[in-house]
Amino acid sequence: MFESAELGHSVSDKEYAEAEPRLREALLQAQYKLLDNGTFPVIIVIGGVDGAGKGETVNILNKWMDPRHIITHAFGEMSDEEAERPRMWRYWRALPPKGRIGILFGAWHTDPIINRVMGRIDDATFELRLDSIVSFEQMLADGGALLLKFWFHLSKKAQKKRLKALEADRKTRWRVTKTDWERFKKYDRFRSISETALRETSVGHAPWIVVEGADANYRSLTAGQTLLDALQSRLAGSAPAVSRPAALPKPALDGRTILSRLDYTKRLARKTYSKELEKYQGRLNLLTRDKKFRNKSLIIVFEGMDAAGKGSTIRRVSGALDARHYQVIPIAAPTEEEHARPYLWRFWRHLPRRGRVTIFDRSWYGRVLVERVEKFCSEEDWMRAYHEINNFEEELVEAGAVIAKFWLTITKQEQLERFRERKDTPFKSFKITAEDWRNRKKWGDYERAVCDMIESTSNETAPWHVIAANDKFYARIEVLKTLCESLERAL
Amino acid sequence: MFESAELGHSVSDKEYAEAEPRLREALLQAQYKLLDNGTFPVIIVIGGVDGAGKGETVNILNKWMDPRHIITHAFGEMSDEEAERPRMWRYWRALPPKGRIGILFGAWHTDPIINRVMGRIDDATFELRLDSIVSFEQMLADGGALLLKFWFHLSKKAQKKRLKALEADRKTRWRVTKTDWERFKKYDRFRSISETALRETSVGHAPWIVVEGADANYRSLTAGQTLLDALQSRLAGSAPAVSRPAALPKPALDGRTILSRLDYTKRLARKTYSKELEKYQGRLNLLTRDKKFRNKSLIIVFEGMDAAGKGSTIRRVSGALDARHYQVIPIAAPTEEEHARPYLWRFWRHLPRRGRVTIFDRSWYGRVLVERVEKFCSEEDWMRAYHEINNFEEELVEAGAVIAKFWLTITKQEQLERFRERKDTPFKSFKITAEDWRNRKKWGDYERAVCDMIESTSNETAPWHVIAANDKFYARIEVLKTLCESLERAL
Repeated sequence: MFESAELGHSVSDKEYAEAEPRLREALLQAQYKLLDNGTFPVIIVIGGVDGAGKGETVNILNKWMDPRHIITHAFGEMSDEEAERPRMWRYWRALPPKGRIGILFGAWHTDPIINRVMGRIDDATFELRLDSIVSFEQMLADGGALLLKFWFHLSKKAQKKRLKALEADRKTRWRVTKTDWERFKKYDRFRSISETALRETSVGHAPWIVVEGADANYRSLTAGQTLLDALQSRLAGSAPAVSRPAALPKPALDGRTILSRLDYTKRLARKTYSKELEKYQGRLNLLTRDKKFRNKSLIIVFEGMDAAGKGSTIRRVSGALDARHYQVIPIAAPTEEEHARPYLWRFWRHLPRRGRVTIFDRSWYGRVLVERVEKFCSEEDWMRAYHEINNFEEELVEAGAVIAKFWLTITKQEQLERFRERKDTPFKSFKITAEDWRNRKKWGDYERAVCDMIESTSNETAPWHVIAANDKFYARIEVLKTLCESLERAL
Repeated sequence: MFESAELGHSVSDKEYAEAEPRLREALLQAQYKLLDNGTFPVIIVIGGVDGAGKGETVNILNKWMDPRHIITHAFGEMSDEEAERPRMWRYWRALPPKGRIGILFGAWHTDPIINRVMGRIDDATFELRLDSIVSFEQMLADGGALLLKFWFHLSKKAQKKRLKALEADRKTRWRVTKTDWERFKKYDRFRSISETALRETSVGHAPWIVVEGADANYRSLTAGQTLLDALQSRLAGSAPAVSRPAALPKPALDGRTILSRLDYTKRLARKTYSKELEKYQGRLNLLTRDKKFRNKSLIIVFEGMDAAGKGSTIRRVSGALDARHYQVIPIAAPTEEEHARPYLWRFWRHLPRRGRVTIFDRSWYGRVLVERVEKFCSEEDWMRAYHEINNFEEELVEAGAVIAKFWLTITKQEQLERFRERKDTPFKSFKITAEDWRNRKKWGDYERAVCDMIESTSNETAPWHVIAANDKFYARIEVLKTLCESLERAL
C-alpha cells in the first residue's frame, strides 16, 4: 500500500511555479460551481504519518480556494459533551452541508489506528471499528457526498529526517513534541496497522489516496489535482452509481402479517389501569434514578398509525420522569440545515447525554414509512435505510443506550371512530387535518411498509414492540411495562 | 420582596381538584395556539430556594401541557465546551424557537447569586452581572419573547421543615444532599442576596413572580394560572409596547463624515507589499501560537461596501493562520432555525473556543446596515441594535476575546471600475449581480448607516478600524498590521 509512496517523488520549483496558478484558479472555479450547484457536500479526510505535511496541505487547500466556504475541523481530545455520546457523534457534528467543502483532520480512522497501536483495543475490536467505518462511508457516499480520503506517508527514514529538520529550525521547533518521538519509536507497528486500516476501508466509492509527503511541491500539487479532478468529474454530472435493490420485500403469500395476527380485544378496566399506571410510573422513575443509569441513556421511539395514541402515551411516560432529564423530540419535516446533510443527521443532533432520556415522537423510521409510501425518497433510498438504521442503532447501543421502539397499532375501524370523535370535539378538532384522511386512504400501503420495517429492523439489540392500542389503557400500561423491563435488563 | 410569600398560602385539595382540570385544558389549548401562531417564544425561568418545589412545578407544567413542544433545560455544572466560551453562551444555546415553550431551570440568575453567597465575587461584580442580565432580558423581551420568571420561596422555618420531611420519607430521601444542608446554613445570606438580585432584575416587561412553595396545591395552581393568563393575553394580541426611539441619528450639518475625510490616495508598491505581507503574516502567525493566546480568542469582523475587497483580504488573513484553528463564517440570510430565535443567536452559535479564531465575512452589523437601509427590520429594531451589539461585544471581550472590526471603504468611482472589471472578466462575472447594482444606487443611504454605526459602536473595547481600500495592497497590510497590534496589546 505504501510502496509507491516511498519512491522519493518530487516536483521541481519550476514545474510547481508553472502548475500552481492554473490549478489554483481551476480549484476556485470548481468550488464556486459546487456552491452554486449545492446538491452535494465534499468531505476531505486527512490522515497519515506525523510530519508528512498534513497540516501544510490543509493550509494550502484553504489558501487556494475560498476559505469562507470551507469548514476545517481538527479532531483532538474529545470534549466532555462528545465523550458522553456515541463514538461517531463528533464526526456527525462536523459534517459539512451540501455545496460546501469540509476538511476533516484526524477523522474517524485515527482513533482505531492509534488505539490499536497503543494496544488499547484488540484485533477483533479493531476489525469491528473498521467495518463500521466502511458502513459509515458507504452511507455518506450513497447520500451523494463526494468523499476523498488522503493519507500522507513518509518512510521511516524520511520521517526521522523530517522531524529532525523541523527541530533544527527555530521557527518550527515548537511543532515537534515528545509525543512525536514516542510515536516514531512505534513507526513499524504504526505502519503495519495503518496499512490494515487503509486496505480494509479502501473501497470503490471511497478509496484512500496515498500521497508521499516528503516533497512539499509534489504533495500539494497531487492533493490539489486529485481534488480538482474529482470535483470536476462530479460537477460534470457523473454521479456515483447507486446500486439498485436486487429485490423489494414482498408481502407473504397467505396475507398473514404481524399486524393482522395481533389481539386487538385486550382491554384494561379504568380501576386496574389507575393502579398499574401508578405502579409502573413509579418503577420507571426509580429505574431512571438508579446509579447504574448514569452511565446509560434511554432512547424511546414512538411510531404508529394516525390517532393511535402516541401523544397521550408519551405523556404517561414523560409523566414518570423528571423534566430535567428527558427531552421529547417531535419529528416533522426537516429544516433546511437538516436537509443539507445526511438523512440521519437530524437524529444524531438530538442524542441524549449519559443519564438522560430522549423520546422521539416519530423518528428515523419515517424514511421507510411516510417517505416510502409518499415517494418522498427513491426506492434505493428507503431500501438502503434498513441497513443504515440498523447500523445507527447498533452504535447507540454500543455506546450504552437502551433503545425501546414502539409501534402503536389500531384497527382501521377504530381509527375511523377516533377521527370522527376528534372532528366533533371542539378542543380536539385541531388534531385532525385533511392529511390524516388522505393518509387513511393509503392504509394498505402503510401496513405493508410497517410489516417490512419490523421485519428488517427488529433485532435483539433494538427490538420493536408492537402494541395493540385499540384500548388506550391497555396500550399505555404495555408501553410502561416494556420500558421498565428493558431498563431492568440493561442495568 | 418575600414577605407575602411567607404567609402560609395554601389551597385545599377540594379546590385544587376543581380548578386543575379546567386550568389544564386551557393551558393545553393556549399551548397549541402558541404553536400554531408561531410568532414568539415563551421563556419560563425557574429559580428559588431549595426544596420549594421548583422541580415539581416544572414536572407538573410538562404534565399539564404537551411535553413534545416544551424544551426543559436544567443548568448544572458547565461542560468544557461551555466553559471555554462567554458566560451567556450556554443560555443562548438553550433558547427555544418561536412557537415553543422553554423552561430554564437554574438559568442566568443562579450563578451570580450563588457566587455572591459563596463570596466568590464581590458586590461590584455582582451588580455588574445583574445589569447585564437586565440588558439580556430586555433584548429577549424587545425581540418579542414572553418572559416569565418564577421564584419559589420558603421561609427559613419552612425550608428546614421541608428538608426534614423529604429526608424522613424513604422515597424522597435521595433528594436531600449535604450541599442542601450546607446551603441551608447560609439561608439568611442567600435570602438577602436573592432579594437584591430579584429587585434589580425585576423590571416592567419581566417582573419576578414570587410564589410561596410550601403548599404544592397553591404553588402549582399559581404557576399554572400565571402562565395561562400571560399566554392568553399575549395571544389575544396585547403585544408589549416597544419604545420608539426618541430621536434618530442625524447627519452632521456640515456634511463631514469619517468616510469623506479619509485619505483614499494611499498606495503600496507591489514590492513593498510583498515584503510587508510576509512580515505581518509571520507576526500574526506567531501571535496566534503564543502561549498566552490559549486563554484568549480572536474575533475578526469584515464589513465594507460591495467590491471593497473583503474576500481577498480575508484570504490574506487566513493565509497567516493554521487552518485547524480558524473558521470563516460567511453571513447570508438567516436559516429558519436562526430566524426563529433572537437576532444575535446565529452569531453566538459560531463563537470560537479559547485559542481559536473566527472570521466573520459580514456580521451582526447587518442589522444596522443592510437591514436598516432595505427596511428588513423596523426603526425600533435597528436603533435598539446599537446597544444590544455593544453589550454583546462587551461580553465577548470580558470572556477573553479580542475583537477587531474592519470597515473596508472605497470611493464610489472605484466601485464602478471594479464592478465593470468583474462584469468583463469571465471568471469574475459570478461575483457581480443585479443586486450589487441596486445596492450601488443606495450609496448615500449606506454611507449614512455606516457613519451612524461607527459613531454608535466604536469604543475602546471593540474599536472600528476604517480602512481606505482603493488600493488593495495598502488595505490588506493595514488590516494585518492592525490585527497584530490588537493581539500584541491583548497578550
